[in-house]
Formats: sequence, structure tokens, C-alpha cells
Amino acid sequence: MSKPKVFEKPIGVKDYLPHAVTKLRQIENQVLACMRSWGYEQIMTPTMEYYDTVGVASSTSDQKLFKLLNNRGTTLVLRSDMTAPIARVVSSVLKDVQFPIRLSYHSSVYRAIEEEAGRDAEFFQTGVELVGDASPDADAEVVALAIASLKAAGVKRFKIAIGHVGFLNGLFEAALPGCRDAQEELKAYLLGRDYVGYRERLRSLTISDEMRAELEGILRLRGGQEICNQAMALRLDDMALSSIRHLCEMWDVLEAYGVCEHALIDLTMIGDFQYYTGMTFEAYAADLGFPVASGGRYDNLLKQFGRPAPATGFALKTTRILELIGDADDDAGPARVLIGYDPAGRAVALEKARELREAGGASVTVMTERMDAVSQAAVREAASGGGQVLYKGVAFTKLLTYFGGEREGEQLA
Amino acid sequence: MSKPKVFEKPIGVKDYLPHAVTKLRQIENQVLACMRSWGYEQIMTPTMEYYDTVGVASSTSDQKLFKLLNNRGTTLVLRSDMTAPIARVVSSVLKDVQFPIRLSYHSSVYRAIEEEAGRDAEFFQTGVELVGDASPDADAEVVALAIASLKAAGVKRFKIAIGHVGFLNGLFEAALPGCRDAQEELKAYLLGRDYVGYRERLRSLTISDEMRAELEGILRLRGGQEICNQAMALRLDDMALSSIRHLCEMWDVLEAYGVCEHALIDLTMIGDFQYYTGMTFEAYAADLGFPVASGGRYDNLLKQFGRPAPATGFALKTTRILELIGDADDDAGPARVLIGYDPAGRAVALEKARELREAGGASVTVMTERMDAVSQAAVREAASGGGQVLYKGVAFTKLLTYFGGEREGEQLA
Repeated sequence: MSKPKVFEKPIGVKDYLPHAVTKLRQIENQVLACMRSWGYEQIMTPTMEYYDTVGVASSTSDQKLFKLLNNRGTTLVLRSDMTAPIARVVSSVLKDVQFPIRLSYHSSVYRAIEEEAGRDAEFFQTGVELVGDASPDADAEVVALAIASLKAAGVKRFKIAIGHVGFLNGLFEAALPGCRDAQEELKAYLLGRDYVGYRERLRSLTISDEMRAELEGILRLRGGQEICNQAMALRLDDMALSSIRHLCEMWDVLEAYGVCEHALIDLTMIGDFQYYTGMTFEAYAADLGFPVASGGRYDNLLKQFGRPAPATGFALKTTRILELIGDADDDAGPARVLIGYDPAGRAVALEKARELREAGGASVTVMTERMDAVSQAAVREAASGGGQVLYKGVAFTKLLTYFGGEREGEQLA
Repeated sequence: MSKPKVFEKPIGVKDYLPHAVTKLRQIENQVLACMRSWGYEQIMTPTMEYYDTVGVASSTSDQKLFKLLNNRGTTLVLRSDMTAPIARVVSSVLKDVQFPIRLSYHSSVYRAIEEEAGRDAEFFQTGVELVGDASPDADAEVVALAIASLKAAGVKRFKIAIGHVGFLNGLFEAALPGCRDAQEELKAYLLGRDYVGYRERLRSLTISDEMRAELEGILRLRGGQEICNQAMALRLDDMALSSIRHLCEMWDVLEAYGVCEHALIDLTMIGDFQYYTGMTFEAYAADLGFPVASGGRYDNLLKQFGRPAPATGFALKTTRILELIGDADDDAGPARVLIGYDPAGRAVALEKARELREAGGASVTVMTERMDAVSQAAVREAASGGGQVLYKGVAFTKLLTYFGGEREGEQLA
């Protein structure tokens, strides 16, 4: 392969310039503050984890993990999500903390291969985990908090589709007892939202017409709480039945939160994480084809780290939300003051800079520059126009100059 | 080697629990706000860079770089500092932005091997780069900003030792013309602050006694601006002489900034980065053996990325500063409210939670919990004592319960 050019960065990763960083930081701070007001405290975990522990427990397929060796020859991975690292922390450093445990994070995560498809190999997620509470109330809490977080992030129009892994597992097992492969194929079609493929596969199965109609019918099971009642009418095993009951009660809780306008039940929903065991959900922003948040219940993950516990959570896809919302407004920034000086004016100029920075707090940015004769001429020229001073491509709201030991001029916007 | 245990994280990396994160975030926000008020705008770059570009240009020795392969077989590195990535950005995405360019960052960086010595393999740095200004004023600006940043971070007592790569290079070349190995050895002793080793090596050199006395004498060249005058008396070549003149003028600028109480000239100072070409400095906090910030001028790095320019900057060693300052105070956090409910009281309880979160802003944290009979008894017991309510190990300042459809009780701290 050809050697990378000096100015190149790897495919699938980004530089965030100041305007994007300003907006990203706003989203990050507002979402974390929202999560905090719901009792979620922020933690940070390492970029690198052991492949054999967190790597294997994560829901990311092996080929999508970035792997490297430490100097002892042990395989490490770059974290591919925050759920498995948090399960490790809850089971180790926090093992004496009683449940429920509420934790939040804002963190970059890494996925190999994705770059091939023009997708990000590194991106930000902002999310929570609620560990130690199996109730529908806990699931509704994370969905309601996802809704509050999306609003805090500035996403205006969105819907959250809620499903249940147990419903589909139970339904397919009742329809195709023991036929794992066929069940997995059907689920793969639903995960890919390939409803044509799903119907075709159904037609090729040797099942009763009635059963086929029922399995096709679930494609229409999208809506409000009435969907739960319709689903109850299907021939369900105990697992599917209790899953529907769980969703029903969750809906009641979401009504108590007053957030049902953003929610819909979608029984074809399958979370794309292997470790989901119950409710799963995805948030879609208006006019966007990809989810801006996803989450679900994972009651079997914690026991892999030695502290069995039910758990539920979600992550905002913060990088995508940033792209959706756009960079910060140029005018929203602080006032910019330029102070030009020469050696004779230096002491007064730098004293003035200190004064302005101390008085201005976050609302003012003061740049100082030692200017030679050429720069002095340029800055005089720039200041002669009135209004904003454009110097070396940057617009300043105020210019102060201290040349020749005297304060020479002051230009106000 | 043995397989890692499920609860283990790799050696040399950290989990930051909520108290530490709160403090780390405070430091980060205060330092970045300080940098912003001096005109430095924040950027973010990817965790992974090409080995052949940023990896090679970085000052980190090859064996200390974490390396991995992407799926095309190209070698990537985890960034080992932010200076080389910023040089890449300034030379590519920002190539049309005029100098001077002021950028800040807060970022984790990675060093392999370090873990062996009980040192961090991943740690935070918060710093700036000032690109396109070769003046002593630019060097003084970053030193003065380092001082302001350390204060903003909460470091109370510290000193900044300032030296110049050109002085030592010039002096050693004048004393040992062409003897690269001997020169490098002497510099290595100074870098390691092994003054005994330095003296012994001097004694083994075949140079005049006068020269030896001069080279020994630099160990005493520590202090204020008078050190520059003493150094001028040595037999210096042009490079060493202009280095001393640069430091002299820098000191004048630092006096104009009013920060000389924190500064000292130390002509034995060698920055540990290969790319330093001029002034270098390190900040030491009282009673600590390691630097809490370091920086210097690197006028040859940018041209490696195709946009030759002088540049200077520094990085706070933020992880060390966090260890120095300690975690956030427990009492400093928001008021914690616990709302317990059963299904009958749910609607009122969750409505109340929303109300409190909206009214409280950042000063209140509201946790809700659906409580069964056992939890209801526990929370009643906890509330009976008066004062703070201790429930499942967490202290709440306020408890509200909604059991049986009625608001049952309210417990105020």
C-alpha cells in the first residue's frame, strides 16, 4: 500500500475544529447536566481494555474491534461501547455500592471496519446505565431520560420506537420450535428492516398459513399501547406474554412521565446488541435515516463480571447529533479584543490585557501581539474602516494599540 | 501469560469514579476557560493517527508508541501528545488560516512501556499551541498562560524553570566541537538531573581546566535575570549568545506580565522532547518531584507537515494535577432528593420529580424508585431518624414517598 501523506489522518476519524468543538461541548454539558439531575453520576474508564474480559463481553463483533498488544503480549481492545466497561467497574471498584447504581458517561468509542462503509471508526457516545432494578419503571426511566437528553442536546423532532427481545424470541420459538437458524434469519431481516426479505423467508417456511399470517402480522404491530392488546391476541408462549405485559406496564410509566407523544411500540424492533435480554429502543430524528440514540435491557451481562444484576441503559449517538444540529453560531462567541504593542508599549499593553481578562470572564477573549512596523501599518489600515477590525483574517470587536510607549489609539466596533 | 481476570483492567490505565470525574471536569473547564480568555480556541483530533506521519513526527520514542493495524494493514498509533496532531491540522485543514494561530486542547494521550514503571499508559493533558510567532513575546505568552492555567487548575505553589536548547547546544559545541556523542551524553545527564554523573563525565573529558570549570559552572546558573548576565560572561558561540539574549528579553516580557515570582532561569533545563529548538520550561509544584506542566519552542516541526512556521506551546499534566489536588468535596454536590412510589402513587410521584428537576437546575438531583413492601419498610425506617435519610448506602437530603395513591410522607433534612 502507499505511504500516507504527511497531512493525512486515518480514514474514518475526524478533526473537530473550534466551531464544532464549541457545539459538541455544549451538547455534552447540557446532556450530562440533564442526566445528573436524574441522579446519574459521571464516570470515565480507560480507552484500552483487555480483549479477554471487556472485549469478549462487548456486543461488538470480533472483526469490528480495534486490537493491539501491550508490551507483555496481552491483547487489548479500544473500547467499542461503554456498557461492558461500566459492568466491569460496577462488579469491581463499585462492588460494595448497593443497587440501584446510576452512572453516566460521555466518551469516544471505536469500531474497526466501519470506515470501509464511510462510517466513523471513532465517535462520541453520551449515555447512562441503571444497574440493579428489573422493574418496567427502570426501563421507562431510561426511555424518559433518553427523551429528556435528546431535548437537552437540542434535537427537536424525534420518535422512540420500543420493542422487546423476549416477544420476538418467544413468538419465533412457538412458531418454529427448535429451528434456531430459521429464527435467526427472520430476526436478521427485522434488524435490517428488510421487510420484503422477511416476507419471502416466511413464505419458504413449512408452517401453517395461520401461523404465517401471524408472523407477517407483526410487521403491522406499530403504534401506541393498543399494540400490546393486539399482540396479546396472538398465540404466545409465556416468554412472549410476559414481555408484552412488561411493555404494557412500561407504557403506563411513560404516560406518568408525560412523554408518550415521543414514544411508539414497534414489536419488530430488535436491538443490534447481542447482550439485550428485554426491552430495546431506538430514537429517530425527523428526516434522518439513522438512529440518534439506542438502548435496552441487558440482564445477563453483569454476571459475566461476577456480580449478577439486572440492568438497563442507553447511549446518545452524539457525533451524529452534532452533524444534525450543526456547528456553533459565529456570533454566539465572546467579544474579541486585539491588543497590539511594540517593546516600548509592552508593559502597559500586557497590564491592560490582564485587566480586561479578569474583568471579562467568559464573555471576552483578549489576544496580544507584538507588532513590527509592517504589522503596525496593517493594523492601522484595518482600523481605519470603522466597525469590526479585520486583522490577519480574524474579526475583532475591539482594537487597542500601544506603540512607542504611548497608548496610540483605540478602535471600538 | 495468564488470562486476565474478568474484573481486571490493563496495567497503567485508570477508572475515574464520580468524585474524581467531578474534580477533573472542574479543572478541565476552568483551564480551558482561562485559555479561551487568552484567545486560544479548542480543537479535538482523533485518538488514532498514522504511524508514518504523526507517529514519526511525535517526540515519543518508538517503543513508547502504542501501535495497531487498521484493516488495510497500515500502522496506526494512539496519539502520544497533541503537538504533532495539531501541527498536522494547522498544515492541512487550517492551511488557509493566517498566523498567528492559537489553539487549545484537553485530551488523553498514550504511552506504552510507562506502565512497567508504575506510570500511566493513558493520561490527560490540557495545553495550547501558538503557531506562527517567533518572538520572545510569544514564548513569554505561553509561559505566562501556563502560570495562569496552573492557578486556574487550583495549583497554589509552583515554580517554572526556563532554559534554552540553543544555549546548551552552542556551549557544548564550542567546548567539544564535533563530538556529538560526548555532547549527547552530557545532555542526557542534565535531562536526568544527574549532576554527579555530569561532573564525572566532565572530568573524563580531555578539555582545558578552564573549559571544564565553565561547563561545571552552568550547574549554578539558576535564578532570575542576573543569570543571563552571568551566562553572557562565558565564552559563547553565536547560537548560545542569541539564546541568552532571547531569554533576557523573554524575562522582560514576563516582568510586564507580572509573573516573575513564579519563574526562574535554569540554564541546565533540557526539555525531554526531541523537537524543541529554543526556549523550554517545566513547572514544579511545591513538594512534588515531578513536573505539573512542560513546554517549549519547536520551530522545525511544522515544516515536516508542509507548512514551515515557528511555534511554541505547553501542556499541563492534568492527571497529575488531579492527584495533587484530590477529588471533589462530597458536600459541594447538589441536593439529593429521593422519591419512592408504588404503582398507585406513580403518576403523582413522577410529576413531582419532573417539577423538582425543572425548578432545581444544577443544584438538585432527583432520583425516583418504585418500591416494593420491603423497600417501603426500609425507607420508612431510614426516614424515622430525622436529618439526612440514609437509604441503600446513599445519603439523601430530602425524601418524598407516594405509596397507596396518596402522598404519604415527606422527610426533610
